[in-house]
Amino acid sequence: MTEYSRTPVTVIGLGSMGSALAETFVAAGHPTTVWNRTAAKAAPLVERGARHAATVDEAVAAGPLVVTCLMTYDDTREVLAPAASVLKDRALITLNSGSPAGARDMADWAIGHGARFLDGAIKNVPSAVGAADTLLYYAGDRGVFDEHRETLTTLGGDTVHLGDEPDLAALYEMAVGGTLLPALVGFFQGAALVQARGLPASTLVRFTVKWFEMINSVLPVFASEIDSGDYSEPASSVNAFVAGIPYDEELGREANLDVSWHAPLHELLRKAVAAGYGEHSVSALTEVLRKPEPAA
Amino acid sequence: MTEYSRTPVTVIGLGSMGSALAETFVAAGHPTTVWNRTAAKAAPLVERGARHAATVDEAVAAGPLVVTCLMTYDDTREVLAPAASVLKDRALITLNSGSPAGARDMADWAIGHGARFLDGAIKNVPSAVGAADTLLYYAGDRGVFDEHRETLTTLGGDTVHLGDEPDLAALYEMAVGGTLLPALVGFFQGAALVQARGLPASTLVRFTVKWFEMINSVLPVFASEIDSGDYSEPASSVNAFVAGIPYDEELGREANLDVSWHAPLHELLRKAVAAGYGEHSVSALTEVLRKPEPAA
Ligand SMILES: NC(=O)c1ccc[n+]([C@@H]2O[C@H](COP(=O)([O-])OP(=O)(O)OC[C@H]3O[C@@H](n4cnc5c(N)ncnc54)[C@H](OP(=O)(O)O)[C@@H]3O)[C@@H](O)[C@H]2O)c1
Ligand SMILES: NC(=O)c1ccc[n+]([C@@H]2O[C@H](COP(=O)([O-])OP(=O)(O)OC[C@H]3O[C@@H](n4cnc5c(N)ncnc54)[C@H](OP(=O)(O)O)[C@@H]3O)[C@@H](O)[C@H]2O)c1
Repeated sequence: MTEYSRTPVTVIGLGSMGSALAETFVAAGHPTTVWNRTAAKAAPLVERGARHAATVDEAVAAGPLVVTCLMTYDDTREVLAPAASVLKDRALITLNSGSPAGARDMADWAIGHGARFLDGAIKNVPSAVGAADTLLYYAGDRGVFDEHRETLTTLGGDTVHLGDEPDLAALYEMAVGGTLLPALVGFFQGAALVQARGLPASTLVRFTVKWFEMINSVLPVFASEIDSGDYSEPASSVNAFVAGIPYDEELGREANLDVSWHAPLHELLRKAVAAGYGEHSVSALTEVLRKPEPAA
Repeated sequence: MTEYSRTPVTVIGLGSMGSALAETFVAAGHPTTVWNRTAAKAAPLVERGARHAATVDEAVAAGPLVVTCLMTYDDTREVLAPAASVLKDRALITLNSGSPAGARDMADWAIGHGARFLDGAIKNVPSAVGAADTLLYYAGDRGVFDEHRETLTTLGGDTVHLGDEPDLAALYEMAVGGTLLPALVGFFQGAALVQARGLPASTLVRFTVKWFEMINSVLPVFASEIDSGDYSEPASSVNAFVAGIPYDEELGREANLDVSWHAPLHELLRKAVAAGYGEHSVSALTEVLRKPEPAA
C-alpha cells in the first residue's frame, strides 16, 4: 500500500491533542494538511511530512475529511467561519470537549453549511493517541463513521459509534467525566493523610489502583440495579455508607485536613435514608440525584 | 502434607466477611475453630469441618492464631473481654474496618493483655477472599506476620506488611477508601444522565471502567508531583479543571439532576487558584486540603 492510498486528512488545531492527532495520521501514512492559529506549532509536523495550509479555507478544501481539535465548539465555529463555504459535502469531525448542548449547536451549524457531521471525544491523554486500547467515541452521521472507520481507528483501536444523535458523544463524555475530579480529590486527600505520617504519597498508588479496579468490578452490578430500579438486594447498603460518615471527620482530625467537601455526599446519603433507601443498595443514590420534575 | 500440618486458626465473628475467612481457612486444610454471637451462623462452617466453640475464651484458647472480623474495634474488645486472660502470647489479628485511632486503642488493649497484635484490612468483597490477587494489608507485630505469612496468604495472594505501627493498615484503609463514595456518586450521576436520554446505565459501564483505568495510569505522576512538592509541569492544570466547572452546572440542566455536591470541589479549585496554583498541576489540590497548623 503506497502512502497515497490513505485518505487525505486535515487537522485544524495543533495544541497538545491536535498535534498528537496530526502526528499519528502522518505516521500512519495519511497525507495530512494542518492549520493552527499560532502557525509556529505546525513546524514540527511539517518536518515529519505534514503540509501546512496558509489559511483555514485552504486547509478545509485540501481533502474530504476535516478533524478539528480546538478548545470549545465556540472556538471551532469561530475558526471555521471563513471556511463555511467550502464545508459542503465534506466530513467534519470535531474532537474537542464540550457539553451536549454545545454539540447540538455545533451540529446545527455544520449541517446548515452542508457538512456531514460527526462529533467525537477522546477518552485519554495525547500520548495515548494511536494505541490499540485507546478509546474514542463518536456520534452523528453514521455514514461518515463507516466510510472513515479505518482512518479513525488509526487514532485509537477502541473506536465506537454511539448513535446518530450528534450530542451523544458529549453526553457520554459528561456522564463518564463526572467521576474525575471527585476521584482525584479523594486520592489527593489520601496522599495528604499518608504524608502527614511521613510516608510518601507514592506508597498509596498501588493500593488505590487496586481499589479502582475493585470499584470497576462492581459497576455492572450497580448499573443493573439502576436499570431495573430494584435496589432491594444490596451488596453495599446506603446504611453501610451512613455508618462510614464519622470516618470522614476522623480522617480530617487524623491529619489536620479539610474534609468539608464530603458534606454534600453525606447529605445525599441522609436524603436516601429519608426516602426509605437505608437498607437498599447505595446505587439508589441515583434516584436521590434526580430532581423532582418541575411543575408543568 | 496432612491437614494437621496447617496452623490451627480461630475465627471470631461470622458475618459475611468472617464466614468467608473461616470457609477459606477450612478449605485450605487449617483446623478452624469458630465463634459468633449469633451461634446459628456457625452451622454452615461446622458442616464443612470447622469446630464450633461454645464460648469466646474456649475459641481463643483453641490455638496460637486468633482472627477477629467484627464490625468495629469496640465490638471486638467487648467480645474478647471474657477471653482477656487467655490472650497472653497468642497472635491476635483484627480484620474489621476502623480508624487509625481505633486501631491504636485496640493495639494498646491487646498488647496490655499480652497478645502479639496485628491489625489488617481486606481491600475486597467476601467472595474475593482466597483469590490470588486479593489484597490484604497488615500493620503491627512483624514477628506475627512473618510467622503466619503462609496462613495469611491463604486469604489473599497479595498480602503485605505495611510497618510496625499498628495503625498503619487503618491509615491506608482510610487513605484509599476516601475515593469510594465520591467515585460512585460520580458514576450514579452519569447513570442518571444517560437514563434521562432513554439509554441504559449499563451502556456507561465499559466507558467508566476505561476511565478509571486511565485515572489509575496517571496516579504515579500525581504521586510524584505530591512527593516532590513540584507542581509546576502539569499534565492537567488546576485552570483546566476550573474551565470545566460550568459543565457540572450544565450536566444538572441537561437531565434535571442535583449537582450541588460538586460545589465544594469547585471551591477547592478556586482556593488553589487563589493560592497561585492555577497554572500548576491539579495535584496541587493536595496542598489546599491541608489546613494551616493550629497556632501553638
Ligand atoms: N490534552 C488532553 O489531555 C486532552 C484529552 C482529551 C480531550 N482533550 C480535548 O482536546 C481539545 C484540545 O485540547 P488540547 O489539550 O490540545 O489544548 P491546548 O494544548 O491548549 O490547545 C488548544 C488549541 O486550540 C486552539 N484555540 C483555542 N482557542 C482558539 C480560538 N479562539 N481560535 C483559534 N484557535 C484556538 C489553540 O490555538 P493556539 O495554538 O493558537 O493557541 C490550540 O491549537 C480540548 O477540547 C480538550 O478538552 C484534551
Ligand atoms: N462485607 C464486605 O464487603 C467487607 C469488605 C471489607 C471489609 N469488611 C469489614 O469486615 C468487618 C465485618 O463485616 P461483615 O460484612 O462481615 O459484617 P456483617 O455481615 O454485618 O457481620 C458483622 C459481624 O460482627 C458481629 N458483631 C457486630 N457487633 C457485635 C457485638 N457487639 N458483639 C458481638 N458480635 C458483634 C456480628 O455478629 P452477629 O452475627 O451476632 O450479628 C457479625 O458476626 C467490618 O469491619 C467490615 O467493614 C467487610
